[in-house]
Amino acid sequence: MNILIVHAHPEPLSFTNSLKNTAIDVLQKLGHEVEVSDLYAMGFNPVASAADFTERGNPDYLNYALEQRHASKHHVLADDIQTEIEKVQKADLLILNFPMYWMSMPALLKGWIDRVFVSGIFYGGKRFYNHGGMAGKKAMLCFTLGGRDHMFGETAIHGAMENILIPIQRGTLAYVGYEVLPPFIAYHVPYISQEAREQMLVDYRQHLHNIEHLQPIEFATLEQFDDKLYPLAKG
Amino acid sequence: MNILIVHAHPEPLSFTNSLKNTAIDVLQKLGHEVEVSDLYAMGFNPVASAADFTERGNPDYLNYALEQRHASKHHVLADDIQTEIEKVQKADLLILNFPMYWMSMPALLKGWIDRVFVSGIFYGGKRFYNHGGMAGKKAMLCFTLGGRDHMFGETAIHGAMENILIPIQRGTLAYVGYEVLPPFIAYHVPYISQEAREQMLVDYRQHLHNIEHLQPIEFATLEQFDDKLYPLAKG
Repeated sequence: MNILIVHAHPEPLSFTNSLKNTAIDVLQKLGHEVEVSDLYAMGFNPVASAADFTERGNPDYLNYALEQRHASKHHVLADDIQTEIEKVQKADLLILNFPMYWMSMPALLKGWIDRVFVSGIFYGGKRFYNHGGMAGKKAMLCFTLGGRDHMFGETAIHGAMENILIPIQRGTLAYVGYEVLPPFIAYHVPYISQEAREQMLVDYRQHLHNIEHLQPIEFATLEQFDDKLYPLAKG
Repeated sequence: MNILIVHAHPEPLSFTNSLKNTAIDVLQKLGHEVEVSDLYAMGFNPVASAADFTERGNPDYLNYALEQRHASKHHVLADDIQTEIEKVQKADLLILNFPMYWMSMPALLKGWIDRVFVSGIFYGGKRFYNHGGMAGKKAMLCFTLGGRDHMFGETAIHGAMENILIPIQRGTLAYVGYEVLPPFIAYHVPYISQEAREQMLVDYRQHLHNIEHLQPIEFATLEQFDDKLYPLAKG
């Protein structure tokens, strides 16, 4: 497989960075091609703006998604966006590797999604969910957080992790067509022993060794809905 | 009340901007003080980094949350962060006003949260949820999106909007202590008639007129959990 890891952590010595390096090592040894976008190291710009288009469909009013559609069709996307799109298109597996900030991605990684997942290539018209532009490809989250695992769950203080991840796993990755593999989650990282962290790297190696056998998470498919996206009656 | 509106949209002529202007107008006429952080106009930097601290607790290794705690205690936060914190502290009501990007906030607004909601002031130790640093204050979302309202719901293609909003409403705003008021949601904005959009502004005026009577959304309270944050047995 061709694999793209998109990594966003402000500290190069972080455990999140070690997870990224572990993935590179394991996946290369398994014979895969691995590419990395290290967003902090690249100084990637996360702010969607008019400057993302070298020529405009409508120069007087910025509808960002419509300009994405125009720009992807006419090849007038900013170079940094075009470069990232080509990496994503080449990759059979996309791994987003990050520290959880506010039950979501750091803004730098969120902005990579905002700017790179352009309308017209990743989705558009009826091309979304299982018909999205990335259909046939896989994606996976690998993230660290301070909370303990018992703080997440239906009756736990923060609620179920699968619900917290809905905007990313369902609303973003599945929306553009990816089969979303179960995430690798490293809990309570700043507060545990070095031994416990090393065990997490061992666990992540195991997760990655098994990656071609992981069952994707199930989400809705377009076939369950009518032309106007009302649910079809069951049975 | 003192009210802070944090607005993030790349197009000054956008309907999202009209919602922001409507809020300023209505709330000022009701006698409130309104301040606005227009993040695109300010050129706000959304990327959390070591540059956010003019002096470091640990110069060799960046744990962002621990440096926030150190910096808020020793008054060594970057000026742009300190300015925003003071606006938030002054405000009895915080309104986040944005176009929904990928079932979440634009990266620019997410980065405002990442950098401004600092550990030590907004939360820390056992100061979170109903004991968070902003306890006693209210917050509310106002956002626009392309999707139609029937695409959101338990059996709908995108799932329930209340679940999509968990990371923001529960994991961020409620986490730091805010009472979270019901959001104002403007669906399908780019595809509806000018008349329909004008009706939305009328509806938003009504929502804002009623704001002191809106019932906050219910979330878990710390009193439902033990010292280690395991749920207490019911009954």
